[in-house]
Amino acid sequence: MRVALLGGTGDIGEGMALRWARDTDHEIVIGSRNAEKGESRAADYRDRLSERGVDTDVSGTDNANAAAGSRIVVASVPPAYAADTIEAVRDDLAEEAIVVSPAVAMARDETGFHYDTPEAGSVAETVAAVTPDEVPVVSAFQNLAAGALTDLDRELDLDVVVSGDDADAKGVLMELAEEIEGLRALDAGALANSAEIESITPLLINLAMNNDGMHDLGVRFQ
Amino acid sequence: MRVALLGGTGDIGEGMALRWARDTDHEIVIGSRNAEKGESRAADYRDRLSERGVDTDVSGTDNANAAAGSRIVVASVPPAYAADTIEAVRDDLAEEAIVVSPAVAMARDETGFHYDTPEAGSVAETVAAVTPDEVPVVSAFQNLAAGALTDLDRELDLDVVVSGDDADAKGVLMELAEEIEGLRALDAGALANSAEIESITPLLINLAMNNDGMHDLGVRFQ
Repeated sequence: MRVALLGGTGDIGEGMALRWARDTDHEIVIGSRNAEKGESRAADYRDRLSERGVDTDVSGTDNANAAAGSRIVVASVPPAYAADTIEAVRDDLAEEAIVVSPAVAMARDETGFHYDTPEAGSVAETVAAVTPDEVPVVSAFQNLAAGALTDLDRELDLDVVVSGDDADAKGVLMELAEEIEGLRALDAGALANSAEIESITPLLINLAMNNDGMHDLGVRFQ
Repeated sequence: MRVALLGGTGDIGEGMALRWARDTDHEIVIGSRNAEKGESRAADYRDRLSERGVDTDVSGTDNANAAAGSRIVVASVPPAYAADTIEAVRDDLAEEAIVVSPAVAMARDETGFHYDTPEAGSVAETVAAVTPDEVPVVSAFQNLAAGALTDLDRELDLDVVVSGDDADAKGVLMELAEEIEGLRALDAGALANSAEIESITPLLINLAMNNDGMHDLGVRFQ
């Protein structure tokens, strides 16, 4: 399966690229607004995995070329750019494409980090508003810390909460999430339930700030 | 320490009463709008714990008498009544009282359960607005399922996320939470961070509705 990480040069894209490249045989494509930057980051990820003895299928290009022909298209960009990034590749999306929204809109004030509710209700719904109707959007991966994913020595034991209105697309994403060692995928129902998933991320940061020894937190439901 | 559970006849109050009564030596007082109902529920909790060989200090009365003289006053009532319940006992609160807000405002539609953000930002801040300035308010216990707490055979391995603006009060609550076997207390910072804690509760219900074998979920950060 071809998995495109648009904005895969950023820290959360890096984490997901490294984990998928290490733990699966999927073709991972790093997208960037600048094709050369995408290529050079992909080479960096390949090198780091190669040093660990893992041969991987990671390449880099621009966002449009990354999206074209990919089954999975992840908008791993800051929330303010998520909709624009997907809108820019609308016409490049494959017939079977699934768009994935992992971004979280946050604001910080003197009390801590807060969920900054987008007008559409959540970042995922903001992305869905610009995605072609026939392409399903799945909300996922918001509650994984880049620091935990990129540290390949760190063993994960975390949940990925997934929501979306297309059951088949959600199923594909849940399987893809669980191919990363130590991740369990849970179904939170409709895309309209994404806000409560996204809201956990500022709480994870507040917890890391206020509790000794806690860093790069994730969540587990039990 | 005297712990009052206002509305302790409801299911989450029942769960907290049973767990504190079983696991600690604190004096647990069940408050109700109706003193006789408070007394009869307290007798029921005592009997159930006595059948398990646990002698407990649980009594029942009306909310005002429960609040009077208590160090901890928990507004374990539905969110719509939380502020009114605390306002009604304002003048009964002890000098050292700490008010605790465990309620969550939720709405349900065809897509699932959603956090129904109160005007003040969170239920805890709604409660704080009617609590005397000198009495600290702590937000806690939102993410524990009544069904998990009341099933005393169920072993817990869950987090209680606590937020509040008075560090001492928060410390007292964190200790009290950890006296329940299997609970770990985490500090989420200021009371203004309560919304992100409260928002997890509708997600817990959505997850239980959409994943086979998951019931009465709680959360663990790692």
